[in-house]
Amino acid sequence: MAQRPSPVRGMRDVLPDAAERRLWLESAIHQVFARFGYRPIETPALEDLRFLESGQGGDNEKLIFKTLRRGLDLAQVREVGELADAGLRFDLTVPLARFYATNAPESPAPFRAVQIGAVWRAERPQRGRWRQFTQCDIDILGEPSLLAEVELLTAGGQALAAVGLEEFTIRLNHRGLLTALLGVCGFAAQASPQVLIVVDKLDKIGAEGVERELREAGHPEQAVGALAQVLAKADAATTPDELARLLPSGIDERLLEELRTITDAVALPVGAPKARVVLDVSLVRGMGYYTGPIFEVAAPGLGSSIAGGGRYDEMIGRIGGQPAACGFSIGFERLAEVLTPAAADQSGRVALLWREDQDWPR
Amino acid sequence: MAQRPSPVRGMRDVLPDAAERRLWLESAIHQVFARFGYRPIETPALEDLRFLESGQGGDNEKLIFKTLRRGLDLAQVREVGELADAGLRFDLTVPLARFYATNAPESPAPFRAVQIGAVWRAERPQRGRWRQFTQCDIDILGEPSLLAEVELLTAGGQALAAVGLEEFTIRLNHRGLLTALLGVCGFAAQASPQVLIVVDKLDKIGAEGVERELREAGHPEQAVGALAQVLAKADAATTPDELARLLPSGIDERLLEELRTITDAVALPVGAPKARVVLDVSLVRGMGYYTGPIFEVAAPGLGSSIAGGGRYDEMIGRIGGQPAACGFSIGFERLAEVLTPAAADQSGRVALLWREDQDWPR
Repeated sequence: MAQRPSPVRGMRDVLPDAAERRLWLESAIHQVFARFGYRPIETPALEDLRFLESGQGGDNEKLIFKTLRRGLDLAQVREVGELADAGLRFDLTVPLARFYATNAPESPAPFRAVQIGAVWRAERPQRGRWRQFTQCDIDILGEPSLLAEVELLTAGGQALAAVGLEEFTIRLNHRGLLTALLGVCGFAAQASPQVLIVVDKLDKIGAEGVERELREAGHPEQAVGALAQVLAKADAATTPDELARLLPSGIDERLLEELRTITDAVALPVGAPKARVVLDVSLVRGMGYYTGPIFEVAAPGLGSSIAGGGRYDEMIGRIGGQPAACGFSIGFERLAEVLTPAAADQSGRVALLWREDQDWPR
Repeated sequence: MAQRPSPVRGMRDVLPDAAERRLWLESAIHQVFARFGYRPIETPALEDLRFLESGQGGDNEKLIFKTLRRGLDLAQVREVGELADAGLRFDLTVPLARFYATNAPESPAPFRAVQIGAVWRAERPQRGRWRQFTQCDIDILGEPSLLAEVELLTAGGQALAAVGLEEFTIRLNHRGLLTALLGVCGFAAQASPQVLIVVDKLDKIGAEGVERELREAGHPEQAVGALAQVLAKADAATTPDELARLLPSGIDERLLEELRTITDAVALPVGAPKARVVLDVSLVRGMGYYTGPIFEVAAPGLGSSIAGGGRYDEMIGRIGGQPAACGFSIGFERLAEVLTPAAADQSGRVALLWREDQDWPR
C-alpha cells in the first residue's frame, strides 16, 4: 500500500505515552471512588435502539452509530429504520439506566456505580472532537436525599485532587430554582426549556446577548428584563445569602435551602487548597433530564467544564428501575490531555508548619 | 415497562464483583509487561472494512458487526455491501497491523505493544460465548529473530504466574516443521491447509479420528499412515531429542534447532514452580496467518488454551509495515472467570529454606 493507512474517519490511535497516562488516570480515579464505596460496572458497547432512541439523549440520539442487522435481505427493506436494531452507546447514562432496570434486584440500595468507558458519536469531525472518546461517570441510584449530591461532590473533588488538580471551582445551581425563577420573572411555563437553552449560552454571548436573543424570540419584555437583571449579577451572588438577596421574591425558599445544605456539607479535599464551591444561578447544563441540583467544575487553564452532573430523578424510572438518581461525570479526555502522574505527585504534597518554641497540645 | 429490559442479544452486563476482578487482572497484567518494556496502545473499536475483510481474520470476517453508513439514501443502494464501510473489530491483531502501518515512523524498532480491549463477533449466541469479550494481546513487531519468541514466552509466563497460576504447560510447535512433516509424509503441498484443519481436531477426535477423516478426504494412503504414526506418539516426544527421534528423516534440521533454542532459553517464573515447556508436534493453532513457531498454554482445570500465539511474519507486511511479528495472547475472559486477587497472593508466596547449622556463603 503506497499511502499510510489511517484509523476510520474521526477516530484515533492512542500511542504509548498517552495510553500510559490514560491507564494511570483510570486507576487513580477508581482508587478514590472505591474508598467511597463506588463499585465498577461495565455495560456492552451496543444497546438496543429502543433505549438509545428513547428521547433521553437529546441531540446525541441523532449521532448514533447503528449496526446493520444480521442476515439482511435488501429486497425486504422498505426504509432505513429497518436496517438496524442496535447502536453504539453515545453516553454512559442511558446504559446505566438500562443496567439498573436489568439488575436492580441484585443491586444494593442505594447503588453506587463508577463507569469508565468508551462512547461513540458520529459528529462532524473537527479539531479536538473525536467520534470515540472515554467518559467517566459516578452515579448514586436510589438515594432521594441530598446526601447523594453531597457525597458525589465530596468524592468527585477528592478524585480531582488525587489526579493533580490543586485549584478548581464547583459551580452549583438547582433546576427547580431556575424553573421557579423563570416563573416569577413572568415567562410562560411551557417556554422554560427554550429559555434555558438561551441562558445556557451566557458564557459565550454574555448577558446582553442572552437578553437580545430572548427578546427576539418574542418572550414578554418584562420577563426578559427581570431575568437579565438577575443574570447580570449572578457572578457576584456566590453564597446562599448573596443569592437570597439577588433573587426576586416569590421563589420557594426550600430550593435555596437545598443549595445551602449542599454548600455547607461538601468536604473539599485537603490536597486541593484552592478548591471551592460557589452558587451560580446562571448555570443550566445542557441535558434535559436534570430535575434537581446541578453542578459543573471549572479549573484555571482547563476550561469551564472539566466535570459536571446533577440529579436526574425521572430518567431511570422511565426505563424501569427506581426513580432517584444523581450523577457526577469527570471530563476524562480533557484530564488525560493535561495531567501526568508527576503532576499528581506534586499536588499530593502537604506542608507541615510548626514553631520550634511551641508545645503541642496533648 | 412490565418486563425487565435486557442487554442486546448475546451481550452481558458486568456486575461489580466481576468488574473488580477484571480491573485487578488488567492492572496486574499491565504491570508485568511494563517491566519487560511492553507499552500499552489503544485502537478505535471501529476499523475500515477494507482492513477487517482483508482475508487475515479467517471465519471471523463473517462475524463482523458493521456500522451503517451515515446519511444513507436507500433508493441509491443496490446491494447490502454498500450499506456499511466500517465495522467493530473482531480481534486485536488486524487493528495492530493497521496501527503499525499508520504509526511505524513514530514507533521504536522492535516495537513492543500490549493491548487489553473489547472485540465483537456476531456469533450464534450460546452458553459461555459472548458477542462482546475482552482480548489481551502482547506483540513484538520488527524482531525477526527467536529473541521475540523467547521474550514473549518468558514475559507471558511471568504474567500468568503473577495473576495466580502455579501450574501450566507451554506447548510449542513450528508451522514450518508441520509443513515439512506433511511434505515428507507424502501429502501434496497444496493440501497442507486442509490437512492441518483436520490435525487441529486431534484433541477432540483422537489420532484414529484424524486418520479416518484424512483417508475419507482422499489423501494418499501412505501419507495418512505415516502422519498417523507420528501423531500417535506426539504426546511422548516432548523434548527436542525425543522429537528428533520421532520425526521421519528428510526434515530440515534447522526447524528443530529453532524449537530447541526457544525451549532452552525461556525463563519460567519462580512463582509458578510447576510451569514447563514441552514440544508438541500435533499443535496446529487455528489461524492461517502463522508462519513460524507457535505455542499454546494449558493449565489443569482451566482448559487446554488459556493463552497462545506465535510468529505471523507476513500479515503486518500485507497492510503496510515491517513484516516481522510475533504475538502472545492471554485468555482474559477465562482467567477473569476463575482467578481472584486472593489466589494471586497465594501464588506469590516463596518458601525460603535454610539449615540452622550451616553458614551462608559470603
